Order: sequence, then C-alpha cells, then structure tokens
Amino acid sequence: VRYAETDAQGVVYHANYLVYMEVARTAFTRARGLPYQQLEAQGVNLVVVEAKLRYKAPAAYDDPLLVRVRVRELRGKVVRFAYCIEHAESRRLLVTGETTHVCVGRDFRPREIPPEVRAAFGPESQGPAAGACDS
Amino acid sequence: VRYAETDAQGVVYHANYLVYMEVARTAFTRARGLPYQQLEAQGVNLVVVEAKLRYKAPAAYDDPLLVRVRVRELRGKVVRFAYCIEHAESRRLLVTGETTHVCVGRDFRPREIPPEVRAAFGPESQGPAAGACDS
Amino acid sequence: VRYAETDAQGVVYHANYLVYMEVARTAFTRARGLPYQQLEAQGVNLVVVEAKLRYKAPAAYDDPLLVRVRVRELRGKVVRFAYCIEHAESRRLLVTGETTHVCVGRDFRPREIPPEVRAAFGPESQGPAAGACDS
Amino acid sequence: VRYAETDAQGVVYHANYLVYMEVARTAFTRARGLPYQQLEAQGVNLVVVEAKLRYKAPAAYDDPLLVRVRVRELRGKVVRFAYCIEHAESRRLLVTGETTHVCVGRDFRPREIPPEVRAAFGPESQGPAAGACDS
Repeated sequence: VRYAETDAQGVVYHANYLVYMEVARTAFTRARGLPYQQLEAQGVNLVVVEAKLRYKAPAAYDDPLLVRVRVRELRGKVVRFAYCIEHAESRRLLVTGETTHVCVGRDFRPREIPPEVRAAFGPESQGPAAGACDS
Repeated sequence: VRYAETDAQGVVYHANYLVYMEVARTAFTRARGLPYQQLEAQGVNLVVVEAKLRYKAPAAYDDPLLVRVRVRELRGKVVRFAYCIEHAESRRLLVTGETTHVCVGRDFRPREIPPEVRAAFGPESQGPAAGACDS
Repeated sequence: VRYAETDAQGVVYHANYLVYMEVARTAFTRARGLPYQQLEAQGVNLVVVEAKLRYKAPAAYDDPLLVRVRVRELRGKVVRFAYCIEHAESRRLLVTGETTHVCVGRDFRPREIPPEVRAAFGPESQGPAAGACDS
Repeated sequence: VRYAETDAQGVVYHANYLVYMEVARTAFTRARGLPYQQLEAQGVNLVVVEAKLRYKAPAAYDDPLLVRVRVRELRGKVVRFAYCIEHAESRRLLVTGETTHVCVGRDFRPREIPPEVRAAFGPESQGPAAGACDS
C-alpha cells in the first residue's frame, strides 16, 4: 500500500482496490502468456462492463497485499474474474471483488473471445466451484 | 472529467467513477443538512461495505458529467445509495452504481443510524420503486 | 478537496496539487478562448517539461480551494505558468507552483507557439513583475 | 506502470512521478533501517516542503521503471532527496526530480533531524558531487 493510496481515515481509499485488481489481472494474463500488448495486437480488448466489491476490513499504509485472481466465468464474449485481496502476512481477508469484461474488436464491437485467449484462461484456472476466497 | 482521470484508452479510468460517486454523495448529504463534519461530530461514520458499478458507455476528457444520487434503502444500520452518471449535455447514461454503507460509531462498531440522519435521508429521497436511472 | 485526494495524514496528498494546477490551467486556457480540443485541432500540444511546487500549509478534506494561474513567461516554444493555491475562504496561501511547457506539433517535435495562442495568453495576463501570490 | 497511472495521451500522467518518487523514498529509508513506522514512533515526520520535476521522456503502460534515489543534502532540519527515473530495461532517462523535507515533531514544529536518522541517511549515501543521473 502506497501512501498516495490512503485517505484521511488512514486506510486505503476504497476506489483503489479496483486498481489493485487490475494490476493482478494484468499479471495473471501475462502469466498465462497473454500480455496486454499481444491481446491488443490480436485486435482484442477486454472492456470492463461491471465491477463489484465487498469491503471486509481496511488495509493501512505499507501493508503488504496479496491479490488472488481467477477466471470465474468464460463464455461467448464475456469473461468474469473474481478476486480476493488479503493482507499478505496475516492472510486476513480484506476485500473480495468481481469484474466482468466484454471482448471487443478494433471496431469496439463485441466479438467472441478468440480460441487461444479462451485456452489460455482455460478451465483449469477456474478452480473448484467453491468460493473464491477460501483456501 | 479531469485529464488526470483518463487512461491510455482516452477515457475515464474505471475506478474513478467511485470517486465521482463519492463527490456526489458528499454534496447530497450536505444538501440534506448533514455535512461530513457534522456527522463525524455526532460520532457517526458511514463506512463503505459494498460497491457495484455497471459501465454503459465511456466518458472522455473534459466531458461534463452529471451524477445523480438517491437513497435506495435505509434500514437499521445500513444505508444504500444508487447513482446514475450521465453526460451532462447529451444526457447519455454512462454508468450506474450502488454503494452500501454501514453506520459505525467512534469505536468503529456498527450502530443504528441516528434518527436525525434517518430523517435527513428521509423517504422522499427514496423516489419511486422504479429504476434509478429513468426519468 | 475530495476525500480520495487526502492521505493518511488527513491532508491532501502532495502529488494532487499538480492535478489542481492542471484543472486551473485548463479553465484558464478555455477562458482565453483556447479550449484543449481547439489547440489539439491546430496540431498544438503543450507538453509539461518541468514542474515546481512549494508547500506552505496543508489542505484538509472538504476545504474549498482557489487556484490562481497566470502566464509567467512566453517565448518561442515555451510557456510557463505560475500558480497560487489558497484556501478559498481564509485566503491562506497553501501551495505555490510553476509548470513549464514546450509547444509540440503532431509529430511531437518542438515548434513555435502559434500567434493566436500567443495572443490569447497575451501580455496582459502576465501581470506585474511582482510575485505571483501577493494581492 | 499501471494502467490507472496513464492518461489520454497514452503515457504516465505527470503527477504520478511524485508517487513513484515517494515509493522509492520509502524503500530507501526502509533499506537504511528506518521504516516509516519507526520514524513515526520516534516522533519524527519528514514533511514535503518542495518538489521539482524535469520531464525528459514519457513512460507508457506496462513500462518497467527504475527509480534511483539518493540523499542530496542533509543539514539541520532539512533533508533533500534527488531522483532519477529510468526505463528499467533501456535505461533511458525519463524524469529527474528533487524533494525537500523538513523534519517535524509530534507538535508539527520543525526540529533537528535526530542523530540516528542522520547517521542512517549518512554521507556515504550522498554520492559524488556529480549529477544525480549519470551512472
């Protein structure tokens, strides 16, 4: 947690968790062999259409955070990611969230998620049916 | 829309709508006679426990935005606000959202929303049962 | 001052004054008849090459701020703005600053500031030689 | 570089370099055995009173950045840090900067920098008289 990300209550400003979630999502897609630049080169853009956050406990300045991300749903033009943000040491659960994305092409029209992207996000990443944040 | 709020796609970064929603919420509570400082002086803090956003269309740099906010639910220790963010001129609907807050006291424990706060947020602000963003 | 702009010390995070300065600069150029879009349509972009800030006193959440901006220097390819950020009510001086911009064309190469831009920023806006923040 | 940190020109918004500089400063003081929490426990706070930035070249989304920081001046109540922000791979110099801090106590009054803080920041960290950014 950076100082810039805290607010006058001494904790992370609530909008910043969406930023952490994006940082994790980027790392996730890169780890799956799909860096942002490559997606873009394929004319694929995953536009955020929905976001949900549940705030369980606050994070403070300098807290080390662990953001876990998984693909929760993958069908047609839509991919949904689920997130668990924990204190990296105490493993206390701080925030859970979800973002839903529609795949759009260069013309910004919705299009099917390409097979190689689908494969990269593939089933093994979806984990068990169980909740995203129990491990 | 400030330049700082845009991202490399040339549109408002998605986390910033939570900031706009908060700015509108602050103006709303002040207009109801409950500036933040007064709430705090009463030992009342409305902590965000949940947020939801649906992105319909993007906003660009320098776009004038109109954020409409209303109390959608008010019971016990919980208040829920609903938001419609529109382009202030074209009135195009850009984002809808909801934030849920729990009232906590100085000890950070949940407590009933005080009657005067309840009265200020009162029923007339809840609007019809209809959707938040049609009118 | 928005809540999102404060930090754990309860005051505006120091980087945000650069945002306020830009918001004022945008309003200033628009008031001079040169909205950003028009500059861009003319193939003119004023790229920040230098920024300086002096922090005199902190601003807190919900403080109304007044940002005064003037053209301090205007020559060739360079324009320099000076800023005074005050508490809008107490008129206490909080921050002074300066940003220096180089005019670049569509090819991102430095170019002379066009005459009409120069005229709009014109001499009368440069004020007396005296300090930017006394008055 | 996070997506949230870019602006509509596709590059890092200029205010965000102050955030990067702070992140580096925090890491630096921690590496010197003086984590923020310990400074605070000693009743020491290093308040920013001045900041300067020179923008040489822009950084884009996902660029890996290297921020080098050193103590440039250390006397009485004042410490000044100098920064070089480079592209971590190409080593291209992007931004240079400086921040000046006054040491204040719990009463927010300026005070001498305590000997142990002075020792930690010590002379060896000040480097040669040469420019901050030539390596």
